[in-house]
Amino acid sequence: MSKPRKDLILKVSCPDSPGLVSKIANYIASYNANVIEFNQFADAVNGKFFARLEVDTSQATVSVDELEEGFAVLAKSISAEWHFRRLPHKTRTAILVTKTSHCLNDLIWRAQNGELPIEITSIIGNQLACKEVVERAGLTFHYVDFKEQSKEEAFAEVDSILKQEKVNLIVLARFMQIMPAWICEAYSGKIINIHHSFLPAFIGANPYRQAYNRGVKIIGATCHYVTSDLDAGPIIEQQVSRVQHFHNVHDLTRMGRDCERAALARGIRYHVYDRTIIDGNRAIVFSD
Amino acid sequence: MSKPRKDLILKVSCPDSPGLVSKIANYIASYNANVIEFNQFADAVNGKFFARLEVDTSQATVSVDELEEGFAVLAKSISAEWHFRRLPHKTRTAILVTKTSHCLNDLIWRAQNGELPIEITSIIGNQLACKEVVERAGLTFHYVDFKEQSKEEAFAEVDSILKQEKVNLIVLARFMQIMPAWICEAYSGKIINIHHSFLPAFIGANPYRQAYNRGVKIIGATCHYVTSDLDAGPIIEQQVSRVQHFHNVHDLTRMGRDCERAALARGIRYHVYDRTIIDGNRAIVFSD
Amino acid sequence: MSKPRKDLILKVSCPDSPGLVSKIANYIASYNANVIEFNQFADAVNGKFFARLEVDTSQATVSVDELEEGFAVLAKSISAEWHFRRLPHKTRTAILVTKTSHCLNDLIWRAQNGELPIEITSIIGNQLACKEVVERAGLTFHYVDFKEQSKEEAFAEVDSILKQEKVNLIVLARFMQIMPAWICEAYSGKIINIHHSFLPAFIGANPYRQAYNRGVKIIGATCHYVTSDLDAGPIIEQQVSRVQHFHNVHDLTRMGRDCERAALARGIRYHVYDRTIIDGNRAIVFSD
Amino acid sequence: MSKPRKDLILKVSCPDSPGLVSKIANYIASYNANVIEFNQFADAVNGKFFARLEVDTSQATVSVDELEEGFAVLAKSISAEWHFRRLPHKTRTAILVTKTSHCLNDLIWRAQNGELPIEITSIIGNQLACKEVVERAGLTFHYVDFKEQSKEEAFAEVDSILKQEKVNLIVLARFMQIMPAWICEAYSGKIINIHHSFLPAFIGANPYRQAYNRGVKIIGATCHYVTSDLDAGPIIEQQVSRVQHFHNVHDLTRMGRDCERAALARGIRYHVYDRTIIDGNRAIVFSD
Repeated sequence: MSKPRKDLILKVSCPDSPGLVSKIANYIASYNANVIEFNQFADAVNGKFFARLEVDTSQATVSVDELEEGFAVLAKSISAEWHFRRLPHKTRTAILVTKTSHCLNDLIWRAQNGELPIEITSIIGNQLACKEVVERAGLTFHYVDFKEQSKEEAFAEVDSILKQEKVNLIVLARFMQIMPAWICEAYSGKIINIHHSFLPAFIGANPYRQAYNRGVKIIGATCHYVTSDLDAGPIIEQQVSRVQHFHNVHDLTRMGRDCERAALARGIRYHVYDRTIIDGNRAIVFSD
Repeated sequence: MSKPRKDLILKVSCPDSPGLVSKIANYIASYNANVIEFNQFADAVNGKFFARLEVDTSQATVSVDELEEGFAVLAKSISAEWHFRRLPHKTRTAILVTKTSHCLNDLIWRAQNGELPIEITSIIGNQLACKEVVERAGLTFHYVDFKEQSKEEAFAEVDSILKQEKVNLIVLARFMQIMPAWICEAYSGKIINIHHSFLPAFIGANPYRQAYNRGVKIIGATCHYVTSDLDAGPIIEQQVSRVQHFHNVHDLTRMGRDCERAALARGIRYHVYDRTIIDGNRAIVFSD
Repeated sequence: MSKPRKDLILKVSCPDSPGLVSKIANYIASYNANVIEFNQFADAVNGKFFARLEVDTSQATVSVDELEEGFAVLAKSISAEWHFRRLPHKTRTAILVTKTSHCLNDLIWRAQNGELPIEITSIIGNQLACKEVVERAGLTFHYVDFKEQSKEEAFAEVDSILKQEKVNLIVLARFMQIMPAWICEAYSGKIINIHHSFLPAFIGANPYRQAYNRGVKIIGATCHYVTSDLDAGPIIEQQVSRVQHFHNVHDLTRMGRDCERAALARGIRYHVYDRTIIDGNRAIVFSD
Repeated sequence: MSKPRKDLILKVSCPDSPGLVSKIANYIASYNANVIEFNQFADAVNGKFFARLEVDTSQATVSVDELEEGFAVLAKSISAEWHFRRLPHKTRTAILVTKTSHCLNDLIWRAQNGELPIEITSIIGNQLACKEVVERAGLTFHYVDFKEQSKEEAFAEVDSILKQEKVNLIVLARFMQIMPAWICEAYSGKIINIHHSFLPAFIGANPYRQAYNRGVKIIGATCHYVTSDLDAGPIIEQQVSRVQHFHNVHDLTRMGRDCERAALARGIRYHVYDRTIIDGNRAIVFSD
């Protein structure tokens, strides 16, 4: 009992027009590749078309490279942005941390046990707190000093690590530094952050204290793409937890950690399986 | 800001084979109808293909009747079961009740306010408890006596009401009688029940007492299609609620009512928008 | 199988100091009344003590009036605010509405079926939209004109209805007018509002559109006490619902209605069973 | 901003009678100890009284040992079972595993970061699969052979490890062996299991396959005390997750892992903070 064999994910977004599903499905079928799963969404508000296909190319009459080459022509004719992802695939991933290790430890476990198809190439900390967790897992910890050098220098150091490892995804796992605009742009759509509140409530520092002070009955965590506009990037996933009056800030922090881990792991999962398409400040998420 | 205009829902299930998405999408496109939403699922376990399309026929080059006629040919060639539903549509619905009115009142409100596209043609009770709720809503209450006549006679009376009103959906809204096999068959796939437990836990009578006795920490309600195999029909929707040790059976019953209302309303919604496909004892639900 | 017989709820808040539980429990025990349930919370942050007791006075050696009289002395000695509520009790309740009837219909049903111990004495609308729902339920609808007369005059009219009916609780069930400060003060701690967002996110108008625009993955509703500081009153209860990219503003509005009904009904329930204690801009809620 | 200083948890259960709250609170107050939190529940069904107190003894006029000695007299007079737990406290805990490490890894992380007050004294596996996870965390892995020796011999080996380490809590973190009755009795109320279904649904083997076959829309995990009656012990905590038709058994297993981790961590938390009282086949849980 397993899902149908699929070896290709195709992601498409373009202006909406009649016949798009037919055109795309036809293209796939014409080379005897088989659509295993087809998710599609036409946004009437802004006239856009979004689709995600899981495809089995095992019986195809052309190679996947040729299939991709040919699709480029179709894509051009419908003004589409698109992406072919061959499976299996592991996304080369950097994780940036500061003090707390709960998200980091969770991601390492999921990666090492094959639950998340990411290869953690680099773990970078601006403090030493997570060093032991990282090394115990048999991974390398990069300490980048944000005190003795300027932020600019520090981020240049971060960037050189990212480049050296050909990182394709940057995960901010409670990294307490604001990413500079030039990194946000260089890795546009490839930086995922976990914010420890139910955005847009409690933007900024100390969200659990803010939540306590406001007396909310539910707290949350938000996994979102990072843009240069802090805490306003497209939301991928949110998780919530019920709290009561007797929970103090320390309790909220503890309970929130479980929300953060869950939201971040899900958000990354959606990203690496090409289930997300960024559309302005919103994210289309073909969740599973 | 509204969804794209759609006036047709197409539901298809058939043996899986390559190119089905393409064939169906092509057929729609060839008459200049436009696929607004395409949901598809290929079940690798039993080699079946399921799809649901929302279609805009406003620019089509043929009438919807002709579109349907032509689709019958395609459907035959792929051995499909299929259904065309023209929108807007109101499903002619009977609601059967016994004592409690919480689900009934909820459904009447949703129908009368246009939230659920059902026309409540008949409300049938084997007790008089719900008469007032029904009549206050300006509807007719049919009392069917299950005591003075045999069950067979009583169900024949129920059936004659259903037939007279050309009912297309029967909702058992806490109806405390077991439907006879001949009605289950006559209305196969058209009878929806709400069971007051998280099936398959606590099948049978007094599920809230069973739940209390077992000391569960979460209770639930299950909306399912009725088959002649009691409480084993395909599940459409389930809802749960957290409970604690200090909740007695009376409390569980109260809290469960909210689960029941929510699960039933959602289940009916999925059914009348053709979001469900029965597959043996499971239900494919293209939920929204 | 039923909860222990209880006929008195006692609510106390005061500055914290050692021995308070003992003092209160002793007082009750000294007259042979029996504590059935004891909930207590000492807030270390601001040094306050909060307690709620359910008491059985059936074997008490004094009358409940005497018990209350005596308690006033103890309360004074510990500088407590306190409240005795004899059971059974129905809170005289006004419901204020504008256009939508989903919360109203839900509350009427819960009141008429004995699920919520409130007596709906007055339903007041500044539009006529809910008139039919009210009258079908056998209740009186008061239309107050907010167009032909000034707001001041209109609220004076509302107030005279509240006074005439000796209303003890005002429920704003999607009432689209801001309560004037003088009513907020006159009924301090007795006005409950349902806001259609997960506060403090999306304060103000059109929260579902705001939520759509921000692309959140979870929406919510907030039941809170009304103070003259709009949308900032103490939160009693919140409910959330998961949403996806394909849900438009209309869908969010529909899905949000179920959150609103649930949050409001629970919030009122906690209030009328004296499970809430207002503490500045937060609410202690001994939830069940 | 922190909870009031508390250094003692007192747990009491006894036959219900008037004045118990007063007697207990008085006893504490009479020695100038201060009740910080008082949770109490009187079960009308079986006439039992349950209470849990958090106490600050820093200003007490006697030592905690004396306080305990004296309480024994009071306890006897009300026929109570009771327990004093001095804080801070770390429960000596053994974790038994077979193949999967998700719960184990989660518990190690929570213990090592101080989130769960347990000291993991022993990790015992009947397979070698979890050895690496354990050793990387700097802990010792005990392999007990269940193939080359009889079950009786194997469990004797397990027991000798438990005894040597003076284990006070045994956690079955997906341990695929049935505990023999003599261990269940020896460690009565001290063995916690995580079952990978929403009990009482899907008792026994392969619950995720059972859930798939039944077509449920929600799966779950159950943390419960182990008794000699398999899968029927008192439930401490349950967690659920929504699933859809396209999730196969492999998906359910993956999604269920997150439920299992969450339910087990919470269940253990309630146990080690003395928030649970076993009452026949139910568990009173003063959850936080």
